[in-house]
Amino acid sequence: MIVKKLDQVPSQIVEMEGVLGASRQLVLGSPDGVPNFSLRVFTLEVGGHTPQHHHTSEHLNYVISGQGVLVDPEGVERSLAAGDFAFVAPNELHQFRNAGDEPFRFICAVPKQYE
Amino acid sequence: MIVKKLDQVPSQIVEMEGVLGASRQLVLGSPDGVPNFSLRVFTLEVGGHTPQHHHTSEHLNYVISGQGVLVDPEGVERSLAAGDFAFVAPNELHQFRNAGDEPFRFICAVPKQYE
Repeated sequence: MIVKKLDQVPSQIVEMEGVLGASRQLVLGSPDGVPNFSLRVFTLEVGGHTPQHHHTSEHLNYVISGQGVLVDPEGVERSLAAGDFAFVAPNELHQFRNAGDEPFRFICAVPKQYE
Repeated sequence: MIVKKLDQVPSQIVEMEGVLGASRQLVLGSPDGVPNFSLRVFTLEVGGHTPQHHHTSEHLNYVISGQGVLVDPEGVERSLAAGDFAFVAPNELHQFRNAGDEPFRFICAVPKQYE
């Protein structure tokens, strides 16, 4: 049994093509002994975004704070505010963007092999 | 791609031996086409609690609001406040209790076969 506060978890700058102003915290994952899936937290600075990309793993998301959008495969922006949930299916093109004037922070759960 | 607000998701009273004042919302699960794991939200009313129990699936948790405790196998109460994360390992005895004066609400992620 593990209890953690987010500010106890190291944060790493995300370095990928197409990313801007993003950091990642692995809150619960392989180092904690999770058997199946992991919880990461991403923080997008004002103006920041993840790459527009796709991958074989799904995302299950919960928005902790801020205001953002999730861009769908057709380029349509779906609004995401604190308290909202999202599901991105395997192989679905997607991008998260900060659409507000404060950091946009969300949980992103994935199978642990993609953590 | 799915975006949901929690108040759009039906809530069901949890009926199990040892439970008091608990309801459950399946926010993202099998009906949404998730391939591996599901996100449920549990709300414990003031004085409410889940059973003290164990099962073969793990829990990965995030506290949305309120004040609670996670009781470990030795009966020790670990404090849980909004923004905290928790991991309960497979087969580990545990209980969630509302320890405040407002509803205690948390995400509980599980493999989808246990949703």
